[in-house]
Amino acid sequence: MSSATYSVSGMTCGHCVGSVKSEVGKIAGVTAVDVDLATGKVTVTGNEPVEEALVRDAVEEAGYELVTA
Amino acid sequence: MSSATYSVSGMTCGHCVGSVKSEVGKIAGVTAVDVDLATGKVTVTGNEPVEEALVRDAVEEAGYELVTA
Repeated sequence: MSSATYSVSGMTCGHCVGSVKSEVGKIAGVTAVDVDLATGKVTVTGNEPVEEALVRDAVEEAGYELVTA
Repeated sequence: MSSATYSVSGMTCGHCVGSVKSEVGKIAGVTAVDVDLATGKVTVTGNEPVEEALVRDAVEEAGYELVTA
């Protein structure tokens, strides 16, 4: 199992959290997506490491931005 | 035609706007619902005046609060 945590900007409410979870959850191999609205942290878990570019695309598809650490 | 404008608190994003529009739009006789996210103003239009209590219930159903003027 592999987890990575990203910072996402622009989420303001539970609907935003739902949109990010839904889009990131569609990535092949992703088994869980946890979002902390207060901090903007999104933790992506898969059986194998998930490519950051795919996470970035999914977050943007949902309408938000992955913040580069 | 009759329009009334209410203040709604708690809307933070376009998803919130969509939820309010959807719930208020279900009220019998409502022909249009306009929401200004920046100001929280919700304008409800119908052929006849729409009861404020129904608007209040719909806004609460969507998860927000009608602010008493």
